[in-house]
Amino acid sequence: MRSLPRCVPRIVLGLLLFRAAQAAEPFPQAVLDQARVIRERALSDDVGYDLLRSLTTEVGPRSAGSPGDARAVAWALAHLRALGFKNVHAESVKVSHWIRGEARAEITAPWPQPLLPVALGGSVATPAGGIEAEVVPMTTLAELAAAPAGTVKGKIVFFTQRMQRTHDGSGYGTAVAVRGGAALESSRLGALAVVIRSIGTDDNRLAHTGAMRIADSVRTIPALALSNPDADLLENQLASGQSVRLRMLNTSVWGDSAQSANVIAEVPGAARASEVVLLGAHLDSWDLGTGAHDDGAGVATITAAARLIGEARPAPARTVRVVLYANEEHGGQGSRGYVRRHGAEIPRHVMAMESDLGAFPVLGVASRVPLDLLPVARTMASLLAPAGARFLGNEAGGGSDVGPLGELGVPLLDVHTDAAPYFDLHHTANDTFDKIDPELLRQNVSAFATLAYLAAQYPGDFGRAVKPKPAR
Amino acid sequence: MRSLPRCVPRIVLGLLLFRAAQAAEPFPQAVLDQARVIRERALSDDVGYDLLRSLTTEVGPRSAGSPGDARAVAWALAHLRALGFKNVHAESVKVSHWIRGEARAEITAPWPQPLLPVALGGSVATPAGGIEAEVVPMTTLAELAAAPAGTVKGKIVFFTQRMQRTHDGSGYGTAVAVRGGAALESSRLGALAVVIRSIGTDDNRLAHTGAMRIADSVRTIPALALSNPDADLLENQLASGQSVRLRMLNTSVWGDSAQSANVIAEVPGAARASEVVLLGAHLDSWDLGTGAHDDGAGVATITAAARLIGEARPAPARTVRVVLYANEEHGGQGSRGYVRRHGAEIPRHVMAMESDLGAFPVLGVASRVPLDLLPVARTMASLLAPAGARFLGNEAGGGSDVGPLGELGVPLLDVHTDAAPYFDLHHTANDTFDKIDPELLRQNVSAFATLAYLAAQYPGDFGRAVKPKPAR
Repeated sequence: MRSLPRCVPRIVLGLLLFRAAQAAEPFPQAVLDQARVIRERALSDDVGYDLLRSLTTEVGPRSAGSPGDARAVAWALAHLRALGFKNVHAESVKVSHWIRGEARAEITAPWPQPLLPVALGGSVATPAGGIEAEVVPMTTLAELAAAPAGTVKGKIVFFTQRMQRTHDGSGYGTAVAVRGGAALESSRLGALAVVIRSIGTDDNRLAHTGAMRIADSVRTIPALALSNPDADLLENQLASGQSVRLRMLNTSVWGDSAQSANVIAEVPGAARASEVVLLGAHLDSWDLGTGAHDDGAGVATITAAARLIGEARPAPARTVRVVLYANEEHGGQGSRGYVRRHGAEIPRHVMAMESDLGAFPVLGVASRVPLDLLPVARTMASLLAPAGARFLGNEAGGGSDVGPLGELGVPLLDVHTDAAPYFDLHHTANDTFDKIDPELLRQNVSAFATLAYLAAQYPGDFGRAVKPKPAR
Repeated sequence: MRSLPRCVPRIVLGLLLFRAAQAAEPFPQAVLDQARVIRERALSDDVGYDLLRSLTTEVGPRSAGSPGDARAVAWALAHLRALGFKNVHAESVKVSHWIRGEARAEITAPWPQPLLPVALGGSVATPAGGIEAEVVPMTTLAELAAAPAGTVKGKIVFFTQRMQRTHDGSGYGTAVAVRGGAALESSRLGALAVVIRSIGTDDNRLAHTGAMRIADSVRTIPALALSNPDADLLENQLASGQSVRLRMLNTSVWGDSAQSANVIAEVPGAARASEVVLLGAHLDSWDLGTGAHDDGAGVATITAAARLIGEARPAPARTVRVVLYANEEHGGQGSRGYVRRHGAEIPRHVMAMESDLGAFPVLGVASRVPLDLLPVARTMASLLAPAGARFLGNEAGGGSDVGPLGELGVPLLDVHTDAAPYFDLHHTANDTFDKIDPELLRQNVSAFATLAYLAAQYPGDFGRAVKPKPAR
């Protein structure tokens, strides 16, 4: 802990001491008791599971700007109203709109074989007749950057890096740079197109899509993802030492920007209604599956959690706000739109939480609160100990939707779930409702409901959170 | 055991007693020792794994009559010769030739969603504009047969039965009748088309293809398989009680019959060369994957096993013959062609074994030998006890390729492997080389090499096997 500067006025010091005293016994016993009631009630509540069945059955794929996206907004408004939330409304967001076409790829030499690719999000189309060229393998962007000039010119670059399967999701953070930069960096060097080994950890013949970086100054080139089995096959052919050629076709195009919306619903606070505990998830999904884990599970989790809080008596002091964000996957306009529209209100956002890692086992809770409030965060996390959750420190970052609120100082709580199975399904056609374990979904609802209730009832002030260290 | 009829001549009785005495110590110690050497050598031998990598990398999909089929025959001839087999040759077989086109399906009402179907083998094309009709669910063929007249007329029938996952593969036997008869029986009742829940046990968004029954007297209708997740989605929409409509397209067609071949190779016997121990697997595969488990693993298993026997000294008494059958999947012409061409020689086929259940853990061995030779079969199976294999009785049936030899009285040995993981992959795009566990492949090679060596060295005569009971 930093030592206090000499000029700290006595009144501030007094407040800090008061806060420390609070932290020792941060919650009245009645609040803790009620939190435990909510926690247990969630474990036998199937509102979330039923919502998720409804979303995946009646809406399904809902990529930004698509007809499914519009249906999802209508679905959310109807269901949030039916569940008794207040102030249910849509806040219009202009979203980018990429339209997936057909993607094909086949090895033409030395041994012809078909592959089952998918286009990466934002990939431009090939010429109508496709592209056929020699394949140049590269492990990572660093290897590409270090390659002799001309290595990839006129070629199809194949990025072979394999994502590691980890419980904390760190394998994704390491691997995803290739997806983001493959097309951009290869185009700078004159490549015709790229294929990448999917950023995913399963061995199914279902490739993983996802967003890419683009730059106005660089011509974009077609980019496909291959499943791990197809990437293995291509590597096995390359291992022969012979020239390997690929033919690929993609008919995806960018459409005009489209209208979508963040959908918002509230459980109004009883005593401090202007103070907001925000629960976020994203309503859009990639288009290959039905977005069951990504992020239908998040939509279901936070909605069911907020509903349980709304049923609690006495009602929570602060307002619990559900925000279903537009286009997390392919532009992030929902998150930015929320910050823009609610800028004046953000100082009264006392806590933000995001569910966007599927409905898998809850492993722990991380916070980002002022350091003197760490005991409060620890107490909150300790209520999830019966589910096996540990307190994981004060390095919470939020997800991509509430992270920007964190950057503005809003305290955060992250519920860490097992990321290993998530990245088997993430951004594939396999992300479907049958993969949802209702018990694990209830466990997630329980975690969010418990923590959000405590945040809404905390008698003190969470203040503004310390900015994370740059090294993080 | 049946009592002997009174008229049995003394000489026959004498022979039976002689055989029984043999059975007590069926193999010389040196043969058992050599069998154990082969068994252990197989466990560190990667000829099979390397063959399978080569087949899946350099040939890949090889459905009957396709260019891949012809490449597979050439591949097999070259590799069997390179491995030192004798009498390597192709025996021409005329095969049926169905050409997969594009298959699409989407739910159009009440909630539009795309599905990811595959055509069942032999499915005829839809009209160019596709078919759109109401969906009528049926669990099984029995439910269809019992439905009131007109129930499916002008509709798309959806067979919902789910295959059970079992270690002995019995779930397949129960479920597969739907695949065989769905189109035929629905067409008789005036349906426009059928979709079936895949005959498969995984939850991947990859449907399982497979063969169907046809009858000249019945108009064939298009037939698609849905993955379990897509079948769930369709059932979830049907559960709303609303009319559910499907649009489907298929462009598959039947081609003219094509030439393929059974590929044969031998380890010639040293003393009783005209007597044949036959090891069978099928060289063709379905076209969606690369036929790694079905039946590349069988090809690799029996080839590597026979090669190990060929290296044994002293050389085996009988000839060990590898038969890589043409078109097991979609017509069985390879199996019938072998019986036709080798009819005169079949009385000298002393044992037949087939590998066509993937490279999964060996669970046991079943025989079909004359009852008085059960002790011989038990002794043979006992050599696999270190791998955990049990003797599973005398009800062996062979697979679809060597089964017909069994019907002609050729004794059989079946190596039972764990069928549960097999039917997760079977007939899908997921049947690829990365799913092969080299250790399990070696275990299969070891089992086949050990048993085939013992069969080739058995000093007695296996005779002709009892016909299985009709109830089997």
